[in-house]
Amino acid sequence: MTEAALRNPVLEAIYSRRSVRHFTDEPVAPELIEEIIRAGTWAPSGLNNQPWRFAVVTGRELKARFEPLTKYRKVIEMAPVLIPVFVDKKAMYNEVKDHQAMGACIQNMLLAAHSLGLGAVWLGEILKSADQVRQLLSLPENLELMAVIALGHPAHRNQSSTRKGLAEVIVFKDY
Amino acid sequence: MTEAALRNPVLEAIYSRRSVRHFTDEPVAPELIEEIIRAGTWAPSGLNNQPWRFAVVTGRELKARFEPLTKYRKVIEMAPVLIPVFVDKKAMYNEVKDHQAMGACIQNMLLAAHSLGLGAVWLGEILKSADQVRQLLSLPENLELMAVIALGHPAHRNQSSTRKGLAEVIVFKDY
Repeated sequence: MTEAALRNPVLEAIYSRRSVRHFTDEPVAPELIEEIIRAGTWAPSGLNNQPWRFAVVTGRELKARFEPLTKYRKVIEMAPVLIPVFVDKKAMYNEVKDHQAMGACIQNMLLAAHSLGLGAVWLGEILKSADQVRQLLSLPENLELMAVIALGHPAHRNQSSTRKGLAEVIVFKDY
Repeated sequence: MTEAALRNPVLEAIYSRRSVRHFTDEPVAPELIEEIIRAGTWAPSGLNNQPWRFAVVTGRELKARFEPLTKYRKVIEMAPVLIPVFVDKKAMYNEVKDHQAMGACIQNMLLAAHSLGLGAVWLGEILKSADQVRQLLSLPENLELMAVIALGHPAHRNQSSTRKGLAEVIVFKDY
């Protein structure tokens, strides 16, 4: 982390956020769940079309029905909250740009969760079961699953991660 | 903004960030440009494949060659820095998930810029000229333009925006 980041809580959050896959039993207050979703909605989207839609699943029985739909069943089992995130196909205008907007939305949610002392992980592998997730929630076909966010109070924060250095990812500069 | 957000600088940044399209003449320090790119790289990506690549354009003559490639030529003209953001097709593993990761990366960059007192706008319309942008920078075909971020010191911050309320975007909840 650079000097600038040390004094900047937004950069600090961006650099210290990690995927959290182990949670305590403590439930998450509905106000916090809604704050995280609100943060998602403040992502930018092309033409401000806001194509994102959200489900919130906290009930043990319903949550258990998600477990066979992914190889990350243990994360689902342990997380007190699942937020399946959908794109509304009726609101889309450009596939690439709308999928980017969904990513921006999800990143806002992950940063919001982290800033509120919660932990979260972005589950993508479960997209192989996108239709089943939609059907579990009795949602219409115009809603396409984009990710499931598993959320809770972190059991620990010892997840580490690495990134390529800037020299590897900056492919052109003229300064 | 909720009570929680007022006391939380990450939420505050997420809610107060706006697209900035008018910039002062002041150049942006290279350290800040690199901090913004570094923030982008700390987005999550599927399998941690980090498919993002970045170009930095600050020279007046080169920047002018971007102007005919978009209807937002005035933004390009005014912005002291352009950051064309590419996906490396050789690093991709899943089109939808990689495009989402690119969106998460770009959102980190926009939040980082905002947190550093800079202004930025995510330009997507210029994707119609993706190949020309790539060729202007003499970059190989495996790099596909995903967005151009125009960056600078904001001339003002009176841009407003709106979002749907939570009741419109939460399509299922069981709490």
